[in-house]
Amino acid sequence: MTHTVLGPEAVTSAMRILEGTVRRTPVLTVPEIDERLGANVYFKCEHLQRCGAFKFRGAFHALSRLGEDARRSGVLTYSSGNHASGLALAGQLLGVSVTIAMPNNTSPVKRALALSYGAELVDCLPEEREAVGARVAAERGLTIIPPYDHDDIIAGQGTAALELMEDVSDLDMLVTPVGGGGLLAGTALAAALGGEKRPRVFGAEPELGDDAARSFRTGERVTLETVPQTVADGLRTRYVGERNFAVLRAHVDDIVTVTEDAILDAVARLWVYGKQTVEPSSAVPLAALLSGKLDASGRRVGVVLSGGNCDLAQVGAWVAERSAGLRS
Amino acid sequence: MTHTVLGPEAVTSAMRILEGTVRRTPVLTVPEIDERLGANVYFKCEHLQRCGAFKFRGAFHALSRLGEDARRSGVLTYSSGNHASGLALAGQLLGVSVTIAMPNNTSPVKRALALSYGAELVDCLPEEREAVGARVAAERGLTIIPPYDHDDIIAGQGTAALELMEDVSDLDMLVTPVGGGGLLAGTALAAALGGEKRPRVFGAEPELGDDAARSFRTGERVTLETVPQTVADGLRTRYVGERNFAVLRAHVDDIVTVTEDAILDAVARLWVYGKQTVEPSSAVPLAALLSGKLDASGRRVGVVLSGGNCDLAQVGAWVAERSAGLRS
Repeated sequence: MTHTVLGPEAVTSAMRILEGTVRRTPVLTVPEIDERLGANVYFKCEHLQRCGAFKFRGAFHALSRLGEDARRSGVLTYSSGNHASGLALAGQLLGVSVTIAMPNNTSPVKRALALSYGAELVDCLPEEREAVGARVAAERGLTIIPPYDHDDIIAGQGTAALELMEDVSDLDMLVTPVGGGGLLAGTALAAALGGEKRPRVFGAEPELGDDAARSFRTGERVTLETVPQTVADGLRTRYVGERNFAVLRAHVDDIVTVTEDAILDAVARLWVYGKQTVEPSSAVPLAALLSGKLDASGRRVGVVLSGGNCDLAQVGAWVAERSAGLRS
Repeated sequence: MTHTVLGPEAVTSAMRILEGTVRRTPVLTVPEIDERLGANVYFKCEHLQRCGAFKFRGAFHALSRLGEDARRSGVLTYSSGNHASGLALAGQLLGVSVTIAMPNNTSPVKRALALSYGAELVDCLPEEREAVGARVAAERGLTIIPPYDHDDIIAGQGTAALELMEDVSDLDMLVTPVGGGGLLAGTALAAALGGEKRPRVFGAEPELGDDAARSFRTGERVTLETVPQTVADGLRTRYVGERNFAVLRAHVDDIVTVTEDAILDAVARLWVYGKQTVEPSSAVPLAALLSGKLDASGRRVGVVLSGGNCDLAQVGAWVAERSAGLRS
């Protein structure tokens, strides 16, 4: 199956639809992190986005572009996390009913958030989410809005980087986490709008779930046998999307991996120095910078903090355990 | 003993000294909080200030205005918290040695932070901090920089509100926590610079340590018998400063109190919806708004988030306990 690869202008047109509905999230700097890296890092605070994650952008965009009939019948997605909440909130705002095939190991915080926006949840096993989703959608006549492998989702996610590039000039690099590749593909398209002076674009993913890095290296999409059990629960994907992969190959400079330890160290720095309750997935790009997998030194680096929906007691305990070491 | 009451222009001149050294902290809004209050609340993020609290402003200002000889000999303060860290950092930046009489019940996070900036700590009992401080200062020839009862401290703390008023026009109200009254007095002076259209200024303090509210009501400074054991550990003061009190009487509209439960509820909202790891003291003004002690409805309200130095595991656990209730 071949598609036309999505072009950068899709992000511009998504921005026109999203303007006034998405929050224009602030950009923060964290001096302790800049000092350590010898760089200027600009954090785009998508954990302060509606629903607590960038996922609202793609979800609202996709739902906005759906035809009248499909909207009236309702939509379905399969997601263990922020895409579920983003779509649920978008549905609430646009009057579209939202059903979610939700893996039974979904974090309670993310489950509660999706419910709070009025979504209907259908429990399923993690490995069966797509199959269960397809069955329920067929039975009920619902349109499937997948979490990442969808042009409107990719274009919507790219608007975060577009705003960041408008707010911070002359970025040398953009780094995002990569799970299914929605945010990274959208970011790469946004960067491509910068023309010759465009920032280089990098993805960072957990070593435990290195499907994107391996796919990027080999040129063939790799599928992991099991769902990776990384602390970065937003990145527990087994493969990147097909449409996403085409964009990554065309526009991304590299994809690197980081250890669980590096992720937790980066989370701790974002909580302690940045004072932001980001979820572990958000810290994966910073982990790549701090561990030297990406060289930030002397550069102006844009990083998308992807989300902030986590068990505050759990992550707070992890961070506290590490924070004595940080300060000394 | 009578003093000339400090005037608003002191804040303007402090700003000139602090510009370029203090961080111009961002202003955040939290839509879920605005919706609940039917108001526009602008949070001045002093937890993102250097040393993690507004206290750096007053400390650096006071140290900058000290004579050469005093600077060479070094300074001392007594503090269980952010003033200690603020002074330690200011001393590090200005090459002034800093000694701190620190109560032995100081939070480990705050102790570690002061140490990390190179301060020398002298342990003491909570009730004896001033006496021990005075003795050590006399023995070693150190100049005492008290945590709040000092004109340069008050003027420095007022610069946070000054920046907020520059960044957000037409505020109807300003609300800050009140412990010894440094931040509140400085804020009231900054507000007074607004002339006839000045915002009204309110202090909020824990019911458990209601010395400021009682003093304000009766017109006489009240001293509590014991140090109040509020969760807002930055506000465990027994009385407001004498100089502070003179400013409060001249420029503050009211001081209200809030329960421990209201404080924890407000902390939870700032962590969950605002995604900011503020310390409990920072949440006291929001607690006053949410509990109806101050009427925010239809107003533009500036709130100073005073600091973010806390045990993330402890506060994270408190917040997690309450967050299910928040979301439903």
